Amino acid sequence: MIGAVLINGIEGGRVSPQDRGLAYGDGLFETMLVSNGAAPWWDGHVARLRRGCERLGIELPDLPVLAAERDQLCAGVTTAVLKLIVTRGDAGRGYAPPLPSHPTRIVALHPAPARRLADYRDGIALHACRTRLAMQPALAGIKHLNRLEQVLARAEWKDEAFGEGLMFDGDGRAVCATAANIFVVVDGRLFTPDLSRCGVEGTCRAWICAHESVSTGEVDAAMLDASDEFFLASSLRGILPVARFGGRQWNVGPMTRTLQERLWQAVPALDPRRSANA
Amino acid sequence: MIGAVLINGIEGGRVSPQDRGLAYGDGLFETMLVSNGAAPWWDGHVARLRRGCERLGIELPDLPVLAAERDQLCAGVTTAVLKLIVTRGDAGRGYAPPLPSHPTRIVALHPAPARRLADYRDGIALHACRTRLAMQPALAGIKHLNRLEQVLARAEWKDEAFGEGLMFDGDGRAVCATAANIFVVVDGRLFTPDLSRCGVEGTCRAWICAHESVSTGEVDAAMLDASDEFFLASSLRGILPVARFGGRQWNVGPMTRTLQERLWQAVPALDPRRSANA
Repeated sequence: MIGAVLINGIEGGRVSPQDRGLAYGDGLFETMLVSNGAAPWWDGHVARLRRGCERLGIELPDLPVLAAERDQLCAGVTTAVLKLIVTRGDAGRGYAPPLPSHPTRIVALHPAPARRLADYRDGIALHACRTRLAMQPALAGIKHLNRLEQVLARAEWKDEAFGEGLMFDGDGRAVCATAANIFVVVDGRLFTPDLSRCGVEGTCRAWICAHESVSTGEVDAAMLDASDEFFLASSLRGILPVARFGGRQWNVGPMTRTLQERLWQAVPALDPRRSANA
Repeated sequence: MIGAVLINGIEGGRVSPQDRGLAYGDGLFETMLVSNGAAPWWDGHVARLRRGCERLGIELPDLPVLAAERDQLCAGVTTAVLKLIVTRGDAGRGYAPPLPSHPTRIVALHPAPARRLADYRDGIALHACRTRLAMQPALAGIKHLNRLEQVLARAEWKDEAFGEGLMFDGDGRAVCATAANIFVVVDGRLFTPDLSRCGVEGTCRAWICAHESVSTGEVDAAMLDASDEFFLASSLRGILPVARFGGRQWNVGPMTRTLQERLWQAVPALDPRRSANA
């Protein structure tokens, strides 16, 4: 049921005011597409969660237990988002991680995001975020709970004409949207930004990289300008073409269309022709 | 009573699993020295909290209410730490700040940190943190809840021979300890790092800058090496001389001694000769 929450497996459980997730953002999260009782990107999310737990030194939740909680919340649910938070758990004051620690696990069911068919067909406009992403290799790639940069960036626009915002690092490289990865096509080749300094390694990005030849590297303003196609990738929204950014316009090109079709075949729940709701 | 917690004024209140402080570290905190029922640095903490709320666009808590909660928790308490967390409050999924938002206010009483007389007399050794501070002017200076860098840095050492860890930015400038500001004396002049790119503007740092002539700028490795005195400043621990870092040793010099005495006169609760407990 939308709104249901399990905290360490307990419905109606509570979060300690001393949880390190709250105190320091000391934890990780995943937001997963739910369709007809299942979470089709489950393995990708678990793989990223595992990398995040290794990086932060937090114990990975017991996966069969996590899968059982997923099934408990998603049974009979047509479409939704399953959000998982894993923190280093309750502790006293001070940055030193408690030893041993007892991670907190929060699994909650949220409404599915609105999806408009026109966005997938014609593309969306991107806001140019003034908030830059700081370069921090120790935290890059993983989906940790320190998200003030995304919060500040997302607060920059209220105009619904913008479907997302494009974020740059301190050196002016394009990195990602506030909640999606980016891809460009230049001279027929597909590129996505390297995420070793900042950004989150998205689950849909990983799927694209596994199913298409993708070059990973720097994407600067000149490369954006020279690109023939430009799209966003998100595990919740799939492949969203970009139609406008700054002064530039893009048509939805053949690479974007082909990848959309392949993705919708692999993950039918993302196909807006069957699931658009706005 | 140590351990007491008020959440939006309610003892035994609860934190929503959807609080944005937990979801994104979308909030601020303060940790305040408590001595004989009072919080001597209160005004400084409130000033920084106000700057943080303005920066993040979070409504500042009602100050008379906050002061009443402080008094409720601290009445009759000899020595403790009062921790305040202010978040953007409960909300649905997604980075966009809710409008209107209803901030969450958590006030909790923790035990006072251990203080050893010898540390104040002879100085402490600093670990050299490998975790670098990312440069993010949008978040620099304020005491927000995105503290994974400090968590990772503090997790680097368990050896109690180190009293703190020194953190550098990505360009190799010394910025701060994991939970204190730093000061050096070079050719008789007092310097502290500029915090416009990273670091937290400490309450004790502000006191020192208001009571002594301090130059703010870059403190690189050469300057550390050339320094005659080196100390940490923290509102909970006061002025702690540094005796060892890397291969270098420092004696506790006259500037450090003078500032210690002046601080202990201004805030007697910080004087370890009357309050050392370990």
